[in-house]
Amino acid sequence: MPGRNALFVPGPTNTPDRILRAMHRAMEDHRSSSFPALTRPILADLRRVFKTQDGQCFVFPATGTGMWETALVNTLSPGDRVLASRCGQFGHLFIDCAQRLGLRVDVQDEDWGSGANADRIEEALRADTAHEIKGVLVVHNETATGVTSDIAAVRRAIDAAGHPALLYVDTVSGLVSLPFEMDAWGVDAAITGSQKGFMLPAGLGLLGMSRKALDRRATARCARVFFDLGDMIAANASGYFPYTPSVPLLYGLRESLDIIFEEGLDAIHARHHRLAEGCRAAVRGWGLSLCAKEPRWASDTVSAVMVPPGIDGAAVIDVAYRRYGLALGAGLGKMAGQLFRIGHLGDLNELMLLGALAGVELAMRDVGIAVALGSGVAAAQEAFRATAAPLPPRGAPASPDAPPPPTRAAHERVAVAR
Amino acid sequence: MPGRNALFVPGPTNTPDRILRAMHRAMEDHRSSSFPALTRPILADLRRVFKTQDGQCFVFPATGTGMWETALVNTLSPGDRVLASRCGQFGHLFIDCAQRLGLRVDVQDEDWGSGANADRIEEALRADTAHEIKGVLVVHNETATGVTSDIAAVRRAIDAAGHPALLYVDTVSGLVSLPFEMDAWGVDAAITGSQKGFMLPAGLGLLGMSRKALDRRATARCARVFFDLGDMIAANASGYFPYTPSVPLLYGLRESLDIIFEEGLDAIHARHHRLAEGCRAAVRGWGLSLCAKEPRWASDTVSAVMVPPGIDGAAVIDVAYRRYGLALGAGLGKMAGQLFRIGHLGDLNELMLLGALAGVELAMRDVGIAVALGSGVAAAQEAFRATAAPLPPRGAPASPDAPPPPTRAAHERVAVAR
Amino acid sequence: MPGRNALFVPGPTNTPDRILRAMHRAMEDHRSSSFPALTRPILADLRRVFKTQDGQCFVFPATGTGMWETALVNTLSPGDRVLASRCGQFGHLFIDCAQRLGLRVDVQDEDWGSGANADRIEEALRADTAHEIKGVLVVHNETATGVTSDIAAVRRAIDAAGHPALLYVDTVSGLVSLPFEMDAWGVDAAITGSQKGFMLPAGLGLLGMSRKALDRRATARCARVFFDLGDMIAANASGYFPYTPSVPLLYGLRESLDIIFEEGLDAIHARHHRLAEGCRAAVRGWGLSLCAKEPRWASDTVSAVMVPPGIDGAAVIDVAYRRYGLALGAGLGKMAGQLFRIGHLGDLNELMLLGALAGVELAMRDVGIAVALGSGVAAAQEAFRATAAPLPPRGAPASPDAPPPPTRAAHERVAVAR
Amino acid sequence: MPGRNALFVPGPTNTPDRILRAMHRAMEDHRSSSFPALTRPILADLRRVFKTQDGQCFVFPATGTGMWETALVNTLSPGDRVLASRCGQFGHLFIDCAQRLGLRVDVQDEDWGSGANADRIEEALRADTAHEIKGVLVVHNETATGVTSDIAAVRRAIDAAGHPALLYVDTVSGLVSLPFEMDAWGVDAAITGSQKGFMLPAGLGLLGMSRKALDRRATARCARVFFDLGDMIAANASGYFPYTPSVPLLYGLRESLDIIFEEGLDAIHARHHRLAEGCRAAVRGWGLSLCAKEPRWASDTVSAVMVPPGIDGAAVIDVAYRRYGLALGAGLGKMAGQLFRIGHLGDLNELMLLGALAGVELAMRDVGIAVALGSGVAAAQEAFRATAAPLPPRGAPASPDAPPPPTRAAHERVAVAR
Repeated sequence: MPGRNALFVPGPTNTPDRILRAMHRAMEDHRSSSFPALTRPILADLRRVFKTQDGQCFVFPATGTGMWETALVNTLSPGDRVLASRCGQFGHLFIDCAQRLGLRVDVQDEDWGSGANADRIEEALRADTAHEIKGVLVVHNETATGVTSDIAAVRRAIDAAGHPALLYVDTVSGLVSLPFEMDAWGVDAAITGSQKGFMLPAGLGLLGMSRKALDRRATARCARVFFDLGDMIAANASGYFPYTPSVPLLYGLRESLDIIFEEGLDAIHARHHRLAEGCRAAVRGWGLSLCAKEPRWASDTVSAVMVPPGIDGAAVIDVAYRRYGLALGAGLGKMAGQLFRIGHLGDLNELMLLGALAGVELAMRDVGIAVALGSGVAAAQEAFRATAAPLPPRGAPASPDAPPPPTRAAHERVAVAR
Repeated sequence: MPGRNALFVPGPTNTPDRILRAMHRAMEDHRSSSFPALTRPILADLRRVFKTQDGQCFVFPATGTGMWETALVNTLSPGDRVLASRCGQFGHLFIDCAQRLGLRVDVQDEDWGSGANADRIEEALRADTAHEIKGVLVVHNETATGVTSDIAAVRRAIDAAGHPALLYVDTVSGLVSLPFEMDAWGVDAAITGSQKGFMLPAGLGLLGMSRKALDRRATARCARVFFDLGDMIAANASGYFPYTPSVPLLYGLRESLDIIFEEGLDAIHARHHRLAEGCRAAVRGWGLSLCAKEPRWASDTVSAVMVPPGIDGAAVIDVAYRRYGLALGAGLGKMAGQLFRIGHLGDLNELMLLGALAGVELAMRDVGIAVALGSGVAAAQEAFRATAAPLPPRGAPASPDAPPPPTRAAHERVAVAR
Repeated sequence: MPGRNALFVPGPTNTPDRILRAMHRAMEDHRSSSFPALTRPILADLRRVFKTQDGQCFVFPATGTGMWETALVNTLSPGDRVLASRCGQFGHLFIDCAQRLGLRVDVQDEDWGSGANADRIEEALRADTAHEIKGVLVVHNETATGVTSDIAAVRRAIDAAGHPALLYVDTVSGLVSLPFEMDAWGVDAAITGSQKGFMLPAGLGLLGMSRKALDRRATARCARVFFDLGDMIAANASGYFPYTPSVPLLYGLRESLDIIFEEGLDAIHARHHRLAEGCRAAVRGWGLSLCAKEPRWASDTVSAVMVPPGIDGAAVIDVAYRRYGLALGAGLGKMAGQLFRIGHLGDLNELMLLGALAGVELAMRDVGIAVALGSGVAAAQEAFRATAAPLPPRGAPASPDAPPPPTRAAHERVAVAR
Repeated sequence: MPGRNALFVPGPTNTPDRILRAMHRAMEDHRSSSFPALTRPILADLRRVFKTQDGQCFVFPATGTGMWETALVNTLSPGDRVLASRCGQFGHLFIDCAQRLGLRVDVQDEDWGSGANADRIEEALRADTAHEIKGVLVVHNETATGVTSDIAAVRRAIDAAGHPALLYVDTVSGLVSLPFEMDAWGVDAAITGSQKGFMLPAGLGLLGMSRKALDRRATARCARVFFDLGDMIAANASGYFPYTPSVPLLYGLRESLDIIFEEGLDAIHARHHRLAEGCRAAVRGWGLSLCAKEPRWASDTVSAVMVPPGIDGAAVIDVAYRRYGLALGAGLGKMAGQLFRIGHLGDLNELMLLGALAGVELAMRDVGIAVALGSGVAAAQEAFRATAAPLPPRGAPASPDAPPPPTRAAHERVAVAR
């Protein structure tokens, strides 16, 4: 199909050309004396992204799924009890992971479309006077339902109960794109992967661990080799890795961090919120509703759109992909067929999203959903106009130090030749 | 600015990733015994694109401007008389090139917004009973006004006048994207560059010359060295070039030709027409008009949109670029300020164009043009729906030989994991 | 440092430009209906490389280390007994992996510089009349000592003992580069990674499992989530993966497989043997010896060169890297300081190796090893000349269908211009 | 052929990966308001490379051949007389270019293997009391014979004769790699291309013009359009180009300039001299001689090696390319068959050159030249050892600000894992 495909699944996200360039690189010796000059600043900078002073960040040649396992096996022992909130498919899978590792999981089911219920968590922890519960498992941003949970509230609940359980947070589709405060929220294990907010291909599992969590390694008896943090800590100390790292992904991560710091985490969050507001305006423009049951739950990285009764959400996705080159996310687990998902995270801007919304409209009409063409696009455009940053007047220098811009006359004179 | 910029100038066009990959290549010896295996098929395949059996195609390390000069200096002598139609800025510059080479140019000015007037050309040639006029210069697709001239009609005019003048056609923004028939239309010099329909970066001048035109080399006395076709013909005969060629651009051209033949020239023309129809529907939806004065002149590769009185077209372009990352073309020469241009050629699809149209709407509103947001997008969407190709049912194999597609159950099962 | 670095560690190996190009790719939806068209042929073609009809091949977003764990946890239970031959550092680490997973390992230590002792293995298995031993662990090519073990002999030993133990083979630095016959040798688990013979960056663990081994999943009680083959088998069945795969590495693997089949596995093995013979001739030319104690053990992918007494092998490596941009492998474990290693595997030819050998000579002289400059290079050159393939006469067509090559006259005529 | 080809023609040279990466780039609007931020620093930095304060540098989408023409047509009129020294094939072609433009050329033939004769030039200029001679044409580095002329001496000759002729210097294979002083040597037109010292693909013609030369535009009557400096000067003034520039090559040139300034022009010259000394030592080691007749003429960027009587130099090149993947330069014009050329310029280091010299030895033996294998390599190695820079002790920080390097213990500990 000619032209560029429109990738609007909630990950993998678009990898900026800068990162693709940085990854196009001859192999090199990962034991060389110059290699730590690459590795060490990456590991240090990750702590700025996770927002942790005291914790330690890790990079594994794996995926986010592997980091669930890493967080658990390095801190717990078979038979240990944990409490988990289940608000969607990824929470479900996190729990499944824990169970397969031999942990006992107290599951708190919430309506899909809601976030973790801090009150219920507090209640359960208060009831656990013996402090049998070793950890609380929460998904920060439930990719399957487009719901963001309030992690700070979960931390307040744990503290209110005076409970020593560790707080394990899956922030795979949250970190970078959404505000995340590892230290301030008292997160003990923050789990993510490279293919969402970091805008990299999949292939790196990224993990932030608090000191408290790392101390549990001494007593945790879950079997672990590849995901053992001890080997990683020992090798990282001198700037190396215990296994051959993916050299391209490390250079890509270096570039990703540079891009993130150039835009700034606050600006990135604001941009995601603004784009999400445009997307939500479009959904209202179509007369449809989100899976997220209340505005406070609506995620700034992915919108799950409920389809009308009698329509198969999977059909929207199929037509969008095959006819318009637009990749959308499917309904998962018990939401299969009831919704489609628009990912709006990573390296994204207004016009990309408007093109995708136009494509969603076409696909919805093709499968029989009676939306007015252009209705969602117009609503999103209005939202973007209402929140646009002021634009310096034409011809103003880009910065006080910049040379004066070319005059219009000069510009148009050269513009006449080919 | 985050996300991908939207490049909607009428050239350079978007270079497909496949071509960028093909160009990322270590240097090699362009005198090696294996080099002709690259060169010869390229030169042969170019003739399929120019649609010529008898003519010869050339590749210069230069641009389209250089091909104007090459076509003229290899066939004419200082003081020779040529007839030229001027319908826009690029016709103007083609004439300027001829004049600076010492040729005498009979200029036929047309309203900007119209194409070459075959009747007037026939008239002028009939009047030239002494056959002093050695060539007729026409621009196939006037990039500055969004007007496509009827080259077949110009050929009929020359033949009707029984005149031996050579036909020189600038098809820089036409070839590949628009139907072009070098032999069938009797084009003696077909001039283009790499950065439009070929979807490559600028840096190659491409030229098709008829046998009749090549025979003029013997008598043409314009000074020429770099652009002398004799050196090129001699070197090409064995698969080499007289100067060091740009190795990446040759590999890029190889990939470009592969992409063109895979989609097929007819399909490419149909796609460009369909996208252009969508764009024109949007312009009507906005209540604005094209520079092209009649539908028959409207180009399928670029639309020049007249702005309302009191508005500076350059302001639309400025806001579109700085605020939305959308690059549009400016009004050139005497159209400066009166219009902006949307290029819709090359590696392009519906959603890309819809995103750009949404951006044009935003920029127009920002500078005070009272268009309804979404109005052009909706009109283009309607146009696209009306002309969409049928879609095979979901799950049908892509081809009779293809394996059965995965079942929905299988797909959705795996879709639940991360 | 200007110019290209010389990467002569035994992995990661040089990634060919073709593969780097293939990996430079926009992200795409790994759940799309077109994705299996990429995945399925890869999985099928891997079986051609592992040489298995009945077995199944797996691709994990991990490394070779992870495949050790995958092979073991999917087939064994904590407390199970296995027999392992330890001939070098990687055998040592494979054993360590097994022990950390709770397996009991009967270790057979061999001199470092020798391979696995099939007779001793047979003896141990014969003694295990209760068939308590569930598996035999062997390293095909011990990267740390430059020793290739005879896996066929190990299989014969197991069969001679009439023992049902599974055969687990680490062929990380063997597969592709060295002959490997999964079915013919009765290998039950063949373990490798992407960064050696496959010439890819690290980041993929590749695993071949026999039917017999896969059947053990039903009873194996080692905890497993990320490395569980059940999820992988279920997802692969429809052409998908249970976790987000690394899209660039999959495209890279596709290109790698194409390159491998184009050259042919037999030709690749012959090339590696020829290059290794050149390297070994150089070592003899220097008057030094290999770590491999007998010619039959000498690996065709890596040569471990013993340094004279009083010299620190690490100093050779340090000078080679910092002064000449030449990356060599270090002595590991108990061989630390006693040797340096020259990797000669992957995308390699004679001149690359000769340049590296010249650099080794310079580095050795710089640290006080009294080799004659050029002595090893000359010996390798002699070896290469003695085994060079015949060269068709100049100007002969490359193949019967190829066009005649350019004549010398034509070539030299064009060669005079710039 | 597996592995990397060895490119040792005297241009195109190896393009560093950094530059290839920089060139892998989506197209953009070359009329945008942000484009001058790319263009202007490039044009300014080129003056640092040409070493001119007063002159102006130009970048054309063309090659070095086109810059010959540009320099001449912008300063001279048909029938003008120029003086030219012919020491090899490229001097011959420069003269041919001038003649085809209608200039009258007084040719001073020198033995091929010698450089321009400043005494004869002075003599000829003194004899031209009417100052009819408008320019002196010299090739700085005659790529065909491996001879570097003394441009400062030519300038002294012109000044000694008190003659106002302009000095036109072809430094295609000289600039960047060899010392070049446009202002200090009074060069009026300095001509080069992108594919030699700048390490880029071919496709850019680069030209430095003195004020005095630019003033001649007013009176120069040679026809010119594409190569007219007036359009370029007007467009460059605001940071644009009169024709669509090659966006990738501009980004490549930006990276090239960065690389050049990082290493430093003096360091680049010293490196080229050191590598050339190694190459010349090898030639002596083989018992062969250079085309350059005296050491003072021997070029630091290319060595032309005379083959023994009865041997066809072209056969060496053919075998080297087809059997060993080594590209060498041919004898050109009247030297055809008598020599082969080793380019040693651009992004090059010792080990790359040593590998190539080993390949030359193999190819020479294959065609019957009785050189001792390793003899040239050993001689070059000795030369390199004799001139090697001191190496800081192992473990010393790379710079005063750098963090301490990892300790050996740490390094070796991690080195044991895979």
